[in-house]
Order: sequence, then C-alpha cells, then structure tokens
Amino acid sequence: MSGGLAVIAGAGALPGLVLAANHGAWMVRIEGVEAQNPGAPEIAARFEDLGGLFDALRAEGIETVCLAGAMARPALNPMAFDPKMQALAPRLMAAMKGGDDALLRLVVAVFEEEGFAVRGAHELVAGLTAEAGLLAGSPPDREARDDAHRAAAILAALGPVDVGQACVVAGGLCLGIETIQGTDALLAQVAATDPRLRRGARGVLVKRPKPGQDLRVDMPAIGPDTIARAAEAGIAGVVIAAGGVLLVDRAATLAATEAAGLFLLAQ
Amino acid sequence: MSGGLAVIAGAGALPGLVLAANHGAWMVRIEGVEAQNPGAPEIAARFEDLGGLFDALRAEGIETVCLAGAMARPALNPMAFDPKMQALAPRLMAAMKGGDDALLRLVVAVFEEEGFAVRGAHELVAGLTAEAGLLAGSPPDREARDDAHRAAAILAALGPVDVGQACVVAGGLCLGIETIQGTDALLAQVAATDPRLRRGARGVLVKRPKPGQDLRVDMPAIGPDTIARAAEAGIAGVVIAAGGVLLVDRAATLAATEAAGLFLLAQ
Repeated sequence: MSGGLAVIAGAGALPGLVLAANHGAWMVRIEGVEAQNPGAPEIAARFEDLGGLFDALRAEGIETVCLAGAMARPALNPMAFDPKMQALAPRLMAAMKGGDDALLRLVVAVFEEEGFAVRGAHELVAGLTAEAGLLAGSPPDREARDDAHRAAAILAALGPVDVGQACVVAGGLCLGIETIQGTDALLAQVAATDPRLRRGARGVLVKRPKPGQDLRVDMPAIGPDTIARAAEAGIAGVVIAAGGVLLVDRAATLAATEAAGLFLLAQ
Repeated sequence: MSGGLAVIAGAGALPGLVLAANHGAWMVRIEGVEAQNPGAPEIAARFEDLGGLFDALRAEGIETVCLAGAMARPALNPMAFDPKMQALAPRLMAAMKGGDDALLRLVVAVFEEEGFAVRGAHELVAGLTAEAGLLAGSPPDREARDDAHRAAAILAALGPVDVGQACVVAGGLCLGIETIQGTDALLAQVAATDPRLRRGARGVLVKRPKPGQDLRVDMPAIGPDTIARAAEAGIAGVVIAAGGVLLVDRAATLAATEAAGLFLLAQ
C-alpha cells in the first residue's frame, strides 16, 4: 500500500483492530460518531466540512482510507455545508432515499473521485474473514447439508432484488429470511416458531453477502452473540461465505460454537 | 359440471360456503377432522380407508370433488390402511417429507387418477376472489404504488425456490417476507420493527400465490383479521392478486379496510 492509511472510524471493535494491525495509520474521528482509539494519531472531521477532511488527509500524505465500524445515519446540517458538500447535496439526497447500500456506494464513490483508494477492513487485517472449511463443531449431517443448500438457493434467488443476507431452513422448510431488521431478529423469529412447523428438523442458518454488495464498506458479520442466538433458536449450525463474512472475535465465536454443540462452516 | 359434487371438508367457513352455493352437493366428513355442515348430506370417511371413500363417492354418482377448509396433517395409523392406502404408502411417505405443497399435490393426483375432477372452492362459489381494481379505501399514493411494485418483484424473485406468498415493503425497504409461519407472523414482525428502520414510510403488504401453486387446493387468503393486523403494523394498504387470493368474508374484510383507513387493491 503506497502512502498513508486513515481509518474513518465508527462504533465497535473493528476500527481499533484495523488501526492496531496497521502501524502508522491515522484515525479519523467524525464529530458526533462514537469511536474508540487504541492510540493512533487522530484527524478530527465533520460531515459538513468534507473538503476540510480531504485537505487534512492529503496534508498527512494519506492515499488510502478504510471505513470501519458501525455508523448511524448522520444528522446533517445543510446550513453548515462547505462547497464540497454543497456540490454533493443532490447526489446525497438521492442516496439517502435509496437505503444504506446507496449511501455507502456514494461515500465510496466520493472518496475514489477525490483520488483516495478505499480498502475493506478484511483487506487490512489478517483473519477477519474465514477460509473455506469446517471452523468449529462436528461436520454437518446430510439433513443439515441439504438445508444449507436450500437456504443458499433462496438467498441466490433474492440476489437480483437486493434482499437477504441470511436465511434459515429446517427440514427443507424456510423458517425465515433476513430483512432490514437483521440476523438477530431473524433468529428470534425462528426461536419463536411453533416447533410443530419444523417437524423435528433443527435447521441451518446461512449468511453471506448479497451479490454486488461492496465488501469494503458493508460486510455481513457474525460473532459469539450470533452463535448464542442460533443455539436458542435450536439450529444445528451456521454456514458463512468464505472470505465474505466478518468473524467478530474469532476465538470467542469458535469457542461459543463448540460450547453450544453447533457447527460453523465456511464455504 | 357433470355428475355430483362432494366437498372434502376441513375447518373454517369455506366448506359451508361451497355446500350452500352448490345445491345437492355432498359433504365428506373425515374422522378426526373438524368441519361444520350447513345441512348437506354426509359421507363419513377415514383416511386409512381411502378405497372405501372412492366407492362411496361413486355409489352416489359423484364425479367432482372440492377440498375446502383447513386440514391439519392427519395422524395416520398404517396398521389400519386399506389396500388403496397400502399401495399409496411409498408416495405418501415421500410427500410427507416434502412439505404441505407436496402432500396436497399428491392428494389431487390421487383423486384425479381415480377419475374424479378436482375443483377449487373459488370455481364453485362466485365472489370468493377479487376482480382487479380498488376494493376499499382511497387509491394508493405514489410511495405505496412503488412499495407494492418492489414487494411484487421480491415475491417474483422467490418464485423459483417456492417461498413467499406475502411481503411487506416500506419506503423501498423490505420489512419482511412470509415464510412457513404465515401472514399473521409476518405482520407481527413488521409491527415489532423499530420505526426508525422504516424512516417514516408506512408500507404495503402484497399477497399473491406462488408460481405453480395449485389454487384448487391451496389458495392464499385474507380476511378482516389480516386487515386488523396490517393496521396494527402501520401499513398503508394491502395488494392482492386478482382471482388468486380468497377473501374470507368479503363484506367484513372491505368494511374493516375502510374502518382502518387502509386501501385494498386487487391487481
């Protein structure tokens, strides 16, 4: 990577992991965004003064940025927009209507138009995603493999309409498809499902990016909590896309999987 | 319709509607299945003695059957199977594994192989489904039309994997896709969704048959309760497939729609 790196930091552990793994990287702390800093040099920024941020990055010789961590939609003050943001306003308004995906695509496009390279956290920290193979637990049995296959087919069918990062299938029956509420809500729905509808099958959670999802800024993630909720939902195991799903605290996730008697497979 | 008609009756109001609208029709009352009879002549039957049912139907000159009303999966006693059921057992076991759709397809196939015509309730009672057009409420606004369009696209994408009779979209965001738990569970999920995720949009419920669904024995339905739950979920209106969704108690459904300030559109 030529030039310096700056991490545009959101909430959670991810920005710190990227900063810790990339010596000399800068942290961009945006006003109003909660973020923790493990000790990196900081650049203070405001969304309204985007031109100021670009200037500050260039002044430090930064050529690569990484957007890491959860960031709520900003409450913007248009009266305080600098010329860059004023020029960007029409595209911003259109993207705000189009959902988080559209907004993230715009952010990436703007940084790239300004000449910065945009890299994903998984490109800057080893081991954030999983290699293909069984990561924890016993290999899935035939029923679980069939369920995983059907769940993957359902997600593939939804690709063209940009819905569904996760799906639960049990005994061939679809028990839930992730929508805007996220994976935890999906697993809660499965846990609340009348057991008679499952007809004895445990089921499998499959989680993977949507086709066309920009993994640099929007990667599906699982962690120990996901495993705990999957166990509560009675699920036999979890299948994630190799290289396409962040493992939040990998060691704890694998330990939780073993402890719950589930399997975790990347493929 | 040549020959007589017999209604294989399950729970709910539908069998009575078919019997009342088809003078001279017989009601088949299956042991262990809850069903109400508005006064039609009855044929008693047991699942285990399928040959006996076919004989009884033919003895009364019946050439057409209609499966109407909800029927739980029967608890069958293989020891009591007559020769017809014994011969059918392998296909039955396979279908039981394949879900309700496969089971219903088998039941239809068996009646047809025996020479009976199978008709749907909506073919025997006028007005059970809706003609295209606005059935109740004010015409949907632009946002609602866009949401309905997106929900229909999501359901169409799911057609090849045989999932999804219903979907809720609000402001372009998918808030839920019906899975095995049914439409009420979908609407409860939408009602429980953090309002911030909807970003001010009310949303639309679209309900329609899956491609290839056999409407003679398995038609989606809505009723006053569906409308009440849609209203609780904050939804602006409901779009159903013209000719493809049963209106359970049409008058009450339309009245509930008007009272709740929703729209009901068939298209």
